Amino acid sequence: LKALSAYQQLAERHARLSRLGYFHQLSEWDQRTHMPPAGAATKARAHSELASLLHGLATDPGLDDLLARTRDEALDDWQRANVQEIQRRRALSRELPAALVSRHQIAVGTCNAAWMPARRSNDWPAFAATLAPVVAVLREEALCQGEALGVSRYDALLQRWERGTTTARLRRLFAQVSGWLPEMVQHALARQRDEVVLVPTGPFPVAEQAALCQRIMFALGLDPASARLDVSPHPFVTSGSPQDVRLTNRYDEAALMPALRSLVHEAGHGSYRQGSPAEWAEQPLGEPASAAMDEGQALFFERHIGMRPAFSTWLAPQLGQAFGDQPAFDAENLARLALRVRPGKLRTAADELTYPAHVILRFEIERALIDGEIEVADIPAWWDEHMRRLLGIDTRGDFRDGPLQDMHWPDGGFGYFPSYLLGAMTAAQLAASAERDLGSLDGHIAQGDFAPITGWLGNQVWSQASRFEPDELLQRCTGSTLDPEFLRRHLAQRYLGRAPSTTPKAVNP
Amino acid sequence: LKALSAYQQLAERHARLSRLGYFHQLSEWDQRTHMPPAGAATKARAHSELASLLHGLATDPGLDDLLARTRDEALDDWQRANVQEIQRRRALSRELPAALVSRHQIAVGTCNAAWMPARRSNDWPAFAATLAPVVAVLREEALCQGEALGVSRYDALLQRWERGTTTARLRRLFAQVSGWLPEMVQHALARQRDEVVLVPTGPFPVAEQAALCQRIMFALGLDPASARLDVSPHPFVTSGSPQDVRLTNRYDEAALMPALRSLVHEAGHGSYRQGSPAEWAEQPLGEPASAAMDEGQALFFERHIGMRPAFSTWLAPQLGQAFGDQPAFDAENLARLALRVRPGKLRTAADELTYPAHVILRFEIERALIDGEIEVADIPAWWDEHMRRLLGIDTRGDFRDGPLQDMHWPDGGFGYFPSYLLGAMTAAQLAASAERDLGSLDGHIAQGDFAPITGWLGNQVWSQASRFEPDELLQRCTGSTLDPEFLRRHLAQRYLGRAPSTTPKAVNP
Repeated sequence: LKALSAYQQLAERHARLSRLGYFHQLSEWDQRTHMPPAGAATKARAHSELASLLHGLATDPGLDDLLARTRDEALDDWQRANVQEIQRRRALSRELPAALVSRHQIAVGTCNAAWMPARRSNDWPAFAATLAPVVAVLREEALCQGEALGVSRYDALLQRWERGTTTARLRRLFAQVSGWLPEMVQHALARQRDEVVLVPTGPFPVAEQAALCQRIMFALGLDPASARLDVSPHPFVTSGSPQDVRLTNRYDEAALMPALRSLVHEAGHGSYRQGSPAEWAEQPLGEPASAAMDEGQALFFERHIGMRPAFSTWLAPQLGQAFGDQPAFDAENLARLALRVRPGKLRTAADELTYPAHVILRFEIERALIDGEIEVADIPAWWDEHMRRLLGIDTRGDFRDGPLQDMHWPDGGFGYFPSYLLGAMTAAQLAASAERDLGSLDGHIAQGDFAPITGWLGNQVWSQASRFEPDELLQRCTGSTLDPEFLRRHLAQRYLGRAPSTTPKAVNP
Repeated sequence: LKALSAYQQLAERHARLSRLGYFHQLSEWDQRTHMPPAGAATKARAHSELASLLHGLATDPGLDDLLARTRDEALDDWQRANVQEIQRRRALSRELPAALVSRHQIAVGTCNAAWMPARRSNDWPAFAATLAPVVAVLREEALCQGEALGVSRYDALLQRWERGTTTARLRRLFAQVSGWLPEMVQHALARQRDEVVLVPTGPFPVAEQAALCQRIMFALGLDPASARLDVSPHPFVTSGSPQDVRLTNRYDEAALMPALRSLVHEAGHGSYRQGSPAEWAEQPLGEPASAAMDEGQALFFERHIGMRPAFSTWLAPQLGQAFGDQPAFDAENLARLALRVRPGKLRTAADELTYPAHVILRFEIERALIDGEIEVADIPAWWDEHMRRLLGIDTRGDFRDGPLQDMHWPDGGFGYFPSYLLGAMTAAQLAASAERDLGSLDGHIAQGDFAPITGWLGNQVWSQASRFEPDELLQRCTGSTLDPEFLRRHLAQRYLGRAPSTTPKAVNP
């Protein structure tokens, strides 16, 4: 028997974490899809127990010795990158005391349970009382980790989603968008003012919507042997491995298009999981390169496949077949409907042009909240002020479709929101490069032949998993690091009818 | 801060096992209900990891010290019984080497995966090749535990399901049944020879069957906030706690009655879980008293509620409403159909009178197999011989509906089958006592008023969980230990039309 190298031991330690983490993922999926409501307390206790156990394994001091010994071992590029990512996570989890991990579980469990009823009854104070302990725990976590890294509290939380990014970088990137977007929104609204658009009228039976969504997700390339679709109040994707990818969606009998749009979005997330390298499934390197890269895949599917007129061409006959013909199912009408710009209160229902405002609003609030500049009680006033300033909408008194609309904060997911806008930039940048390499995507999409596009994404992005930092990965497949100019060009072309002023540089993939 | 007593520490140790065991149960439920097929390998690795972890916690030497120290502590009856059960399990799990626990997971995972395809293609050799390692592992486990307990290998496995029972006891009990049952079967067949019975004709859409089953399970007393119903190839119940009880069922468009019968059976299992004391949910004492007591509740529901003519009276109009009227839905026809005796190949489809033969057959084979008297290759010949002798059926060459029909062996569940027949005896004994205390159950059942019956079972059995040994529990609520005479009287009354020759003694509950 040959002794295991330090790298092999380290990888096995992480594989163990991953195999036990499987249960946490599965159980969270169950919580949001199938669990009987009264089962929440049992589940919360089980999650807390498992979180403590995983934290103990992740902070075992023996890891440091193994990490040190890998320095002298001959590793290939993937292995070396895997060690770096293990080391990076180790440095973060080491800073969290076990007691804080337990408090996190309890605070998040309580806030999560309070969130849905509070949202239903528009009861901000009831929710705020449970959010305050979550914020307190997250501030402590951010303080522990920020001090070790020498960064601000909010910057410390950003490391959970975007390796190496900072508040300063986000401000710089978002400021560019804020520079050109408001005028673009006004122009688009003016252009669309006299457009006639029909909204499909229901009822659309939920079972039929779900069946159609399943057909679409398989058409987009998800493998029926490895993927499934369930119902949950908020759509999401979870995956135990590339061979077990679970999408969820929500349905409203009265409206068809929101479910289809969500489905296409989640299919992007699911395809990234399915396309990641199976042999790295139990290692950090097998995960998405970043939350922005992950949202980038979802938004590529949603905006650069699903929102194209060519997709409506493919979709229109299927809608007629499933629900009977109606004038709104005309392909050109569906195409106009997909691009309809309408400032509104809800992030998930927002159009492509007003969506960035929703992200910037949340970024500003959660940054100030975590850095201790405001308190939970200040959120509604900040919300109202930003919504008025950014989108001209009066949201006073409506908490339900205000700060109660998202699950991220009750879930403890502070620092995630910026990834949506980074993802929109990523998607636009990838789409430009895909068209550079493949020619127009429209012909394929109109035929329902998505394989060339998913093949390109699979080669360029999915199969690379976390091997490169997000900016390095983008550099390799698009020729530049993240650049909001791609988003501007895409939006200008789509909503103002302007041809892109420049084409992306050709690069060797 | 007061120091925790040894009992409190011991209870907390077991609570931890229980909270982590929650994930194993949930994940097995997922495997049989929702998991994408390709996800099996990931799940098997996760299960193996968790099983090793749980085994490590269960065999921690520190437990012995805690157990010893509880002897000097003042404990109430429940706590003392809980310590005894922890001690009993500790003595069993201590004997299993960690390597054997891993081998068990691998063997069972492989055999489970091979079972369904082998069954579909009637391929005994393919299945047998994967069953042999399972038998080898179980024999080793039984040897380790049997040596420590000073009992035979099969008797050691019986301890997993029936505390304190032995092969000798099972033989004695089963011999009594074999003494009177064959003649009873012949009489019943003769009585039913000229009976006209209509079988409902489908198709019965699966969604409608599932909706009806859900209504029935809630009518029987399961709480919609705590219980749910899913689809699986073989019906079962799993529960994370009394507040999270999950039933499954299977549906066949062509046949309605099998799904209804399964549903009522599983509702009995589920009600036992739901009615167990919530404050003991994380302790061994909170579990069913034995597998026989558990099957006893399921068979009480199936046979002493669901198979009564009064249940058909309640059910008949609901069938007409759900599927449209047809002559077979006449209540008297449904009542005759429920009691129809027909020797057949399938255990789960067997009538009440021929069912014991299916159990005795499996008991004889698995006993000889575990004790090393036969090998896996001998199973088909033994199967054919027993089926011919016990039920007069030729099963040669049909492995699919022969030894491939059950999931117990691929699951490693050797020693479980006897509990079905013990359960049938238990159910008959409990039903006699319920009628003694409540008067005839028929009036309640015909009205769909199941609460008096489930209330009686809840008080007498469910709320007691594992507090007493099964025989002591039966003694307390029926006045005698397990006695097959109750089963004989019940069957004679139902199938031969004879009044019971004696009534059970009255006891104080």
